[in-house]
Amino acid sequence: MHSPSSRDPVRGSATDGGGPGNTGLGGLLTRDIGVVTAGTSVLADALAEQAVPVETVDWRPPAGSPDDLAVVMGDRRRTAADAEAVRRMLNARPHLVDVRPAREVLGIERGTFLHAGPPLAWDRASGPMRGALIGAALFEGLAGTPEEAERVLRTAPLDSCHHHRTVGPMAGVVSPSMWMFVVEDAEGGGTAFCSLNEGLGKVLRYGAYGPEVIERLRWMAGTLGPALRDAVRARGPVDLRAIMAQALHMGDELHNRNRAATSLFVRELAGDLADAGAADALRFTSGNDHFFLNLAMAAGKVSADAARDVPGSSLVVAMARNGTEFGIQVSGTGDRWFTGPAGVPDGLYLGAYGPADANPDIGDSTITETTGVGGFAMAAAPAIVRFIGGEVPDALAATQRMYEITLAEHPAFQVPILDFRGTPVGIDVTKVVRTGILPVVNTGIAGRVAGTGQVGAGLVSPPAEVFTQALHALAEGATITP
Amino acid sequence: MHSPSSRDPVRGSATDGGGPGNTGLGGLLTRDIGVVTAGTSVLADALAEQAVPVETVDWRPPAGSPDDLAVVMGDRRRTAADAEAVRRMLNARPHLVDVRPAREVLGIERGTFLHAGPPLAWDRASGPMRGALIGAALFEGLAGTPEEAERVLRTAPLDSCHHHRTVGPMAGVVSPSMWMFVVEDAEGGGTAFCSLNEGLGKVLRYGAYGPEVIERLRWMAGTLGPALRDAVRARGPVDLRAIMAQALHMGDELHNRNRAATSLFVRELAGDLADAGAADALRFTSGNDHFFLNLAMAAGKVSADAARDVPGSSLVVAMARNGTEFGIQVSGTGDRWFTGPAGVPDGLYLGAYGPADANPDIGDSTITETTGVGGFAMAAAPAIVRFIGGEVPDALAATQRMYEITLAEHPAFQVPILDFRGTPVGIDVTKVVRTGILPVVNTGIAGRVAGTGQVGAGLVSPPAEVFTQALHALAEGATITP
Repeated sequence: MHSPSSRDPVRGSATDGGGPGNTGLGGLLTRDIGVVTAGTSVLADALAEQAVPVETVDWRPPAGSPDDLAVVMGDRRRTAADAEAVRRMLNARPHLVDVRPAREVLGIERGTFLHAGPPLAWDRASGPMRGALIGAALFEGLAGTPEEAERVLRTAPLDSCHHHRTVGPMAGVVSPSMWMFVVEDAEGGGTAFCSLNEGLGKVLRYGAYGPEVIERLRWMAGTLGPALRDAVRARGPVDLRAIMAQALHMGDELHNRNRAATSLFVRELAGDLADAGAADALRFTSGNDHFFLNLAMAAGKVSADAARDVPGSSLVVAMARNGTEFGIQVSGTGDRWFTGPAGVPDGLYLGAYGPADANPDIGDSTITETTGVGGFAMAAAPAIVRFIGGEVPDALAATQRMYEITLAEHPAFQVPILDFRGTPVGIDVTKVVRTGILPVVNTGIAGRVAGTGQVGAGLVSPPAEVFTQALHALAEGATITP
Repeated sequence: MHSPSSRDPVRGSATDGGGPGNTGLGGLLTRDIGVVTAGTSVLADALAEQAVPVETVDWRPPAGSPDDLAVVMGDRRRTAADAEAVRRMLNARPHLVDVRPAREVLGIERGTFLHAGPPLAWDRASGPMRGALIGAALFEGLAGTPEEAERVLRTAPLDSCHHHRTVGPMAGVVSPSMWMFVVEDAEGGGTAFCSLNEGLGKVLRYGAYGPEVIERLRWMAGTLGPALRDAVRARGPVDLRAIMAQALHMGDELHNRNRAATSLFVRELAGDLADAGAADALRFTSGNDHFFLNLAMAAGKVSADAARDVPGSSLVVAMARNGTEFGIQVSGTGDRWFTGPAGVPDGLYLGAYGPADANPDIGDSTITETTGVGGFAMAAAPAIVRFIGGEVPDALAATQRMYEITLAEHPAFQVPILDFRGTPVGIDVTKVVRTGILPVVNTGIAGRVAGTGQVGAGLVSPPAEVFTQALHALAEGATITP
């Protein structure tokens, strides 16, 4: 940032006096002056002390290389590429079509684990990521104790969920015996997968791996998954876009608040679950306000994947955190990850927990923000401030700020209080870099010690450098009109 | 209303000229004048034509007798009485405790019919009220044809639901074989009843009585009622206040929009209904966004009844319409009804229907507005404008206007977008008369021809005279300090 205090033209001029010899300066020194300042407040403060009218503006120079920005902005493919990419994202029609074990739908073998965020090795994994991997190893019967599990995991094949058309909340650990939602895009034909939501408290995704966690995973694989499979197959595809559109009229933002969407989903399947005598599955689903999150994520994944690989497009098609790094992928740069250190969310903590207990940001649930909901739809969910902190106007402002960095307004996802305006959708790397406005992410906060579980919920942003890195890569591949 | 145009002091003065002899008027004629006007626009328009600055204010003299208002305002019991009455209304803790046939819980005999609103005889009943009564007579097997039913109904005992601790939406017809929600106030000990919601379209409460209507009523009495009874008894009491508080965070206002509350209610009972193998009951309940309305109404009724009979209180404890008249009851005036002609709602119409097809306002569902939800909570439900017409700011303004005529802000029912302010609750007759602001009611619109069904939804207000009548009765019973 430039520091305006290093040179102070106003102070310098003022000592020159106001004689007629200075009229060559356009009368600047013979009239009362008003000053507009940008950057740090040193200049504005000095002017205010001298009773000079001063207006501060919140402008800062774009981050990264100005050359990169000029090159990418000048890429002659860009406008059409972005339009095409975001059109594909918005046209997706995600339907829940099946529920099946990961080993069948992902083809992953015993001993393989998927995780949230960009690729990660065990030695760089955070507490909750290690905790979740330990839990998954115990669940799969690969180890009898957490210590044994750690030994197994040091050499086990790990891979990013995103490399398998999959997303997982928080640690996002997927192992072959877990059951997955199968979501198909009825428009574009893609498929995406997400694990089933375990509820709150001591759960694998927040890094807990105690006996009750493993017991629940077994019940989910043995009872819940098959019950949901039978119900979905009996009922037929469930239109997730329709449920999400309704839920945004009902105070959800579909990342940290999924109470309405979960309720609507329960209503869709209740009859078929009852037919199947699956009262326990129905109770479990009904009893978990966050159950729909994993469906919103799979819907987001299949929509974002539809927008991949459009040459020249600066549309963000993935944002994901592994608890150590925050990574993004961009339509015009293929499967390459741009990563930086994950931040710690700012929010409200449960019970006696505080910021010192928080792990850095973790999870693939940022696929919701990537596709125009979550933090981007907070204006639809004013009640969420009771869960993540802040005031109602902050929720409205968060959504309104995101229009500055997005390519479109969602045709189906509306915010009633903003007069049914579509949510801001389609993060544009160039807009983020030009404005310095980072995407707002609404997220749960995991305890940093393996085995702890959830400690809070709040807001976080990606590190700015992932966008300047992406811009640089786009610039390297740009096609400039001669 | 006074008409300011009958005497025009400004025009009269202006012709007098501005000489110094007029300074006795405080300089009025020697200075530029600005005028504040109230009432009809004739004066303001004339001034504006003469380029005189004019500010119009929306003031009107209080309706009714100024003496009544002075007497009631001076009733030395009033402040404490209103505080006690509204305290009881707000302290109610309505729980659904059972579901049983009307004949058992209301003790009404075969051939008796209850109806919505103030008492009504057959010869004054509107089309939808007659249609619903005909349907109930067919359902009870008292007649084989609509014509036979009409003959039976000309002499059948009719009574107001409100006289039996009962409320019913739209026509609100209750006959002995219908099943009722049994709602108890865990705090005050009262009980209230409401019929089960039939869904939308051709339904009895909107005056339809075709074979499919009667068939559905039979299924509800034979299958739905017993299934809900078994589930509620297995589960235990359902806290309706908690569901309603949540639903207001989820875009319901609990009169015309009950999608969230219905969803939350389904989640409460789904497991127990599944245990009972009642998949059809679960499907019916899940498939009807308005199912919770009748529970919100019974919750409102038990809360409003708790506030009855406080001597000196001007709190409204019932607002109800029978399709011909709109009636209110007031805490300080016992069971007396104050009635006036029911208006026609202003709103949106279904399909090809229009205002000419609309019946005047009908139903006990105004018990929601009486207890601080419905139209009074529209700010919590901005999406409702797509159903009843108007714009989002109208929904916010409707709630904010109601704070002018109510005694309290609800401690449990909050509006997130108004920074979690409690809904306006407890309509005060004196405030309505003083301000001229009438309660806003959010309602369905019945077709005026018997057998039609719903034709739309919109907003309506009670006739102002019911409040001036009530004020007069309060004045007659007032206790004035000598």
